[in-house]
Amino acid sequence: MRLLLLNANATEAVTEKIAAEARRVALSGTEILPVTGRFGGRIVGTRAEIAIAEHAALDLAARHGGEADAVLIGVSFDVGLRALRELLSVPVVGMTEAACLTACMLGGRFGLVTYGRRNAATFREIVTGYGLADRLAGIRAPDLTPAEMLTDPEGTAAAIAEAARDLADTDGAEVVVLAGATMAGLPSLIQPLVPVPLVEGIASGVGLAEMLARLHPAGAFGGSYARVGGRQSTGLSAELSRMLSGA
Amino acid sequence: MRLLLLNANATEAVTEKIAAEARRVALSGTEILPVTGRFGGRIVGTRAEIAIAEHAALDLAARHGGEADAVLIGVSFDVGLRALRELLSVPVVGMTEAACLTACMLGGRFGLVTYGRRNAATFREIVTGYGLADRLAGIRAPDLTPAEMLTDPEGTAAAIAEAARDLADTDGAEVVVLAGATMAGLPSLIQPLVPVPLVEGIASGVGLAEMLARLHPAGAFGGSYARVGGRQSTGLSAELSRMLSGA
Amino acid sequence: MRLLLLNANATEAVTEKIAAEARRVALSGTEILPVTGRFGGRIVGTRAEIAIAEHAALDLAARHGGEADAVLIGVSFDVGLRALRELLSVPVVGMTEAACLTACMLGGRFGLVTYGRRNAATFREIVTGYGLADRLAGIRAPDLTPAEMLTDPEGTAAAIAEAARDLADTDGAEVVVLAGATMAGLPSLIQPLVPVPLVEGIASGVGLAEMLARLHPAGAFGGSYARVGGRQSTGLSAELSRMLSGA
Amino acid sequence: MRLLLLNANATEAVTEKIAAEARRVALSGTEILPVTGRFGGRIVGTRAEIAIAEHAALDLAARHGGEADAVLIGVSFDVGLRALRELLSVPVVGMTEAACLTACMLGGRFGLVTYGRRNAATFREIVTGYGLADRLAGIRAPDLTPAEMLTDPEGTAAAIAEAARDLADTDGAEVVVLAGATMAGLPSLIQPLVPVPLVEGIASGVGLAEMLARLHPAGAFGGSYARVGGRQSTGLSAELSRMLSGA
Amino acid sequence: MRLLLLNANATEAVTEKIAAEARRVALSGTEILPVTGRFGGRIVGTRAEIAIAEHAALDLAARHGGEADAVLIGVSFDVGLRALRELLSVPVVGMTEAACLTACMLGGRFGLVTYGRRNAATFREIVTGYGLADRLAGIRAPDLTPAEMLTDPEGTAAAIAEAARDLADTDGAEVVVLAGATMAGLPSLIQPLVPVPLVEGIASGVGLAEMLARLHPAGAFGGSYARVGGRQSTGLSAELSRMLSGA
Amino acid sequence: MRLLLLNANATEAVTEKIAAEARRVALSGTEILPVTGRFGGRIVGTRAEIAIAEHAALDLAARHGGEADAVLIGVSFDVGLRALRELLSVPVVGMTEAACLTACMLGGRFGLVTYGRRNAATFREIVTGYGLADRLAGIRAPDLTPAEMLTDPEGTAAAIAEAARDLADTDGAEVVVLAGATMAGLPSLIQPLVPVPLVEGIASGVGLAEMLARLHPAGAFGGSYARVGGRQSTGLSAELSRMLSGA
Repeated sequence: MRLLLLNANATEAVTEKIAAEARRVALSGTEILPVTGRFGGRIVGTRAEIAIAEHAALDLAARHGGEADAVLIGVSFDVGLRALRELLSVPVVGMTEAACLTACMLGGRFGLVTYGRRNAATFREIVTGYGLADRLAGIRAPDLTPAEMLTDPEGTAAAIAEAARDLADTDGAEVVVLAGATMAGLPSLIQPLVPVPLVEGIASGVGLAEMLARLHPAGAFGGSYARVGGRQSTGLSAELSRMLSGA
Repeated sequence: MRLLLLNANATEAVTEKIAAEARRVALSGTEILPVTGRFGGRIVGTRAEIAIAEHAALDLAARHGGEADAVLIGVSFDVGLRALRELLSVPVVGMTEAACLTACMLGGRFGLVTYGRRNAATFREIVTGYGLADRLAGIRAPDLTPAEMLTDPEGTAAAIAEAARDLADTDGAEVVVLAGATMAGLPSLIQPLVPVPLVEGIASGVGLAEMLARLHPAGAFGGSYARVGGRQSTGLSAELSRMLSGA
Repeated sequence: MRLLLLNANATEAVTEKIAAEARRVALSGTEILPVTGRFGGRIVGTRAEIAIAEHAALDLAARHGGEADAVLIGVSFDVGLRALRELLSVPVVGMTEAACLTACMLGGRFGLVTYGRRNAATFREIVTGYGLADRLAGIRAPDLTPAEMLTDPEGTAAAIAEAARDLADTDGAEVVVLAGATMAGLPSLIQPLVPVPLVEGIASGVGLAEMLARLHPAGAFGGSYARVGGRQSTGLSAELSRMLSGA
Repeated sequence: MRLLLLNANATEAVTEKIAAEARRVALSGTEILPVTGRFGGRIVGTRAEIAIAEHAALDLAARHGGEADAVLIGVSFDVGLRALRELLSVPVVGMTEAACLTACMLGGRFGLVTYGRRNAATFREIVTGYGLADRLAGIRAPDLTPAEMLTDPEGTAAAIAEAARDLADTDGAEVVVLAGATMAGLPSLIQPLVPVPLVEGIASGVGLAEMLARLHPAGAFGGSYARVGGRQSTGLSAELSRMLSGA
Repeated sequence: MRLLLLNANATEAVTEKIAAEARRVALSGTEILPVTGRFGGRIVGTRAEIAIAEHAALDLAARHGGEADAVLIGVSFDVGLRALRELLSVPVVGMTEAACLTACMLGGRFGLVTYGRRNAATFREIVTGYGLADRLAGIRAPDLTPAEMLTDPEGTAAAIAEAARDLADTDGAEVVVLAGATMAGLPSLIQPLVPVPLVEGIASGVGLAEMLARLHPAGAFGGSYARVGGRQSTGLSAELSRMLSGA
Repeated sequence: MRLLLLNANATEAVTEKIAAEARRVALSGTEILPVTGRFGGRIVGTRAEIAIAEHAALDLAARHGGEADAVLIGVSFDVGLRALRELLSVPVVGMTEAACLTACMLGGRFGLVTYGRRNAATFREIVTGYGLADRLAGIRAPDLTPAEMLTDPEGTAAAIAEAARDLADTDGAEVVVLAGATMAGLPSLIQPLVPVPLVEGIASGVGLAEMLARLHPAGAFGGSYARVGGRQSTGLSAELSRMLSGA
């Protein structure tokens, strides 16, 4: 199968990092097709950049979605998730959604660690938007930047591990989600420091996307995810405009 | 005060309709500044068009936000609401948010009427995202299109009224929100047919935006709505890029 | 418009304080009509006094409601709110309800600061009763009395500010509601000490009551807020008895 | 033990009816002390009358509470419940609270039948206020008046039974609460017509009040139910004023 | 009446302890029939032991249920509660369910103290399963074993009291449930150290079971608690097999 | 990998049916190890049989779990799920849990169809227990028996399809879970009759179990799922007793 790994961060280095992890964990027959956002924030990390990345994710899917059997959104804010499910006929998984659902199969309530204090509220909204607020034990957002994660993953790993351990000890988390594209590969490094299982979105997401692609669910012909054609638009890329119009 | 009426639908006729209603209800000292989306769906009505309109709303705000004392989002999906609150230093209100909060002051649980079956699920998510799921008595989405609303508002009004009355009689709604940019002005027309108060987003939103502008709340210096500067981006309009970079 | 400012605390000094703030923030065409509770607790601060004030608020409305275009309940427990909405044909707003709904338009989850430990649980019930539990980040109730607030507002302001800051830093509150009639005017004093916007019920409530009065919503003819006439009662003031009987 | 049966409806006939049922079900050593509201609605059935009855319930408790080992509130809106728990040192139970908690011990989700459409929303708020919204399968409010219930209980019983059966069949209720002072004694009459257990507030409430009186729980010295003394008030009955002041 | 006290812990000493407390608090006409689990964990304290005890509780009920007017489950995890309600025609109460419902009648939100950190999550699930999550202020699980509780109740009492006080002071609990079969009798010992009322499951449960037995509710003929007959099984005790088959 | 397919129904025919479906959908390298309950209900379909099957599932896992890389519980009530996660070091998935989580990745709110009216309440509890109540649009339980499903799957398929379509049309379900071991293989048969995607637990569960086995999550060393050793028990099978004691 061909898995489109859709990174709406406009930074190739992030794409390469998550693509490497995706290839490491994928089934032998899975081909990873990584693509990078063509416009928007270099590293999506604010509400404004998330809003723009919603569009950028669709633009990428319009350009490359036709080649894929499934899509994994490689931005931890799962930008474009619901829109892509409406737009494409193949399964779409968000990396944080994937990590949270995987966490649900490994324990009771889960905690979530991300970097940057401002993101704590955003992730709470995302988890709540998935209907999983009752499973959420707590969130920790140590004051790290994605840039630090990329340039010095080992150095920041200790802070992440400490936050995860604190979620288990203080908030009663029984699994911990590491949320962030740059968390790829981190669980195995710091698992020995944390008393409960760690999950992360790229490895979880590749597995779930592969599983869904094989399950081959039907598309919706009713409800809010049914494909619509004939939509008129203006000022979009030719590919996205064409996809909306259904031509 | 100057109120930016931000219509992310890329259709001038919608802008004119909501601007007329906004001017009708505004305080005498309020100047309405209507703007129309430069790219995206002609009428935002699918999940994909909502995702694109998140970006389009920010682009409009970057171009025109500096001139305004408050912003009202004139698309019923409240596109860009959270991002605009982060990005701008003036109050921002979404028209459906405004109608829902106003409904909260007029009764107990409220119902919501929109057009197009596929939008029912989307509005449920929006109301839930505002933390108001416990106030929501039910949703009705008679199979009408925004186009029908624009071209024949009287003809579709009966269907809207019937849906609103059914929410009151069957679901126990004590107020009914009419959700949709083309609902502007409709409440007074059909109120006699419905046993509970009707509210709509443009009139509610103008009032709340005026009220917030006078309240003049402080901006956030912490949390997920604090203004951030120095964000690097690519491929955006010069205005939006400049706003993200804080230059 | 004429705004009845209904203080069910049986203490004129509190009425004067909130009336001063109401007049400071009101639109130029708004006349503030302050009235003081005729029976009940001098300062409503216990569950028993709240129960009595439910009645006292109705008694005041029966005496003075006919003169007003809107009502603002100037007791932070919003006593009588639902009953007044049933009884009167003009909009009614509770001051804490107003502050909470305003907070919803300024950020994500909000915190609430009040004085007196025993009130923390009561305010949690009030916020939950408004269906806003999912928006509530936390409550702080430093051990101050309303009397201290009245006699030494500056002295107690630091404790309030500290509690608000703690809600932002520890509980992730993105807005903070200052709940209490004696909080009127406090936000601007302590805003520089708190990293997120502060809101308070008198200023919010005047604005919302003005906005609703202009929106002029229809009354309910069905549901639990529909006006009822012909109710028989005994032992009430002539005014309230007459209002219940609908004569 | 002595059980104060506190009827805040200002109608002796209702008091007599619920007192008869209370005596029928009470333990042999339980003395029922019925009292009737001194002011307020003849039959509490609107939001305004509920608000007034909050005060009336406290006034009754101040006059008679000292003689009792427990209190049962014999108005189905459980008026004054929280305030009485604060004010009195003996256990206090609301009749609808009692029926709902009893229902929780007999099945999964429960339904609730009351009379009068306008009361459906009020009872939903009451059940939600007890934190039991997740246990509530649905509410039915056939268009009957308490007066009809008093004068012709057999005639209205069929409508109540039909509503209860519908809750079981349509909403999946596994127990049904009959809410209303005039429902006393009804369950045994109509149980053969309903496929799930019926419970009612007077019989449930007497049993729970007896049980609590024997359990003899400690009073609270902290939190929002701790007894407070030294409260200043005005315009209240001598008994209530004295109780508030703690003299 | 005869009250079957069903201890699914396979340890007689626990049965004796709870039977002693049950007899101490029971009405004079109540006969306590204590029985001990025939298979499973000596002290039920893990998820696996809870799963096995579900079966053991049914086996005990099949052997002894016919002799009883009501059943109290004397294991704090309330093992078999829902199944026993389906299987038996007499009322069934779980001891922790009883304590939680009793707590609901004594204050607002309640806290829960148990022993052993691993049980905190399990009790949260149990309380949530009763639909009472909104009433739960917090859980404390000091690192004690049931064995310590049995051999040295006084010694461990201080730790329990400290946890209860902390729930009141820090989490705002207004009542505290002591969860655990070995907590029987503890409330009166440590109540002076805790500012809010303490409740425990054996005393609460005996009272509620007695109350329900006198209320004599009808059985269900529909829904998930209706008695079923004619079920085929294999490998069970003759008594349980017979009860399932309805012979 | 070796996947233990644990059928706690004591009926081989059910085991064979689900094993056939499991083998049909499994990856080529997956070996399905089906086992059948040694005691309990022939077809688990009542609350009592569920309680017994909790034990039976553990007994099977103690006998066969050591041979497996993952476990799939092939009873739609997911009996023993939490206990098995505590007891085993390999991933454990419940078939209904699997279907619900898969549904979460295919749309918004999902509906659930099962057979037998009494099971509707039980499945609602199960879904709520997974923290997914907010994702549940509704449940339908047409009056069919598992036996009918086994002997005449085609004949009952129409009723299932009709229920699923009704969930989409009336309740707004955007995906429908077919819950029941005998639903295996049904989705592809009836998908053309239903406008939204159908998912079922065996196919979903095999995919998720395979995915988790490859993800190879760490075990818990803290919290309620941490493995415990040294537990004393009586009256259990030698295998289960040994597993509890950790010998």
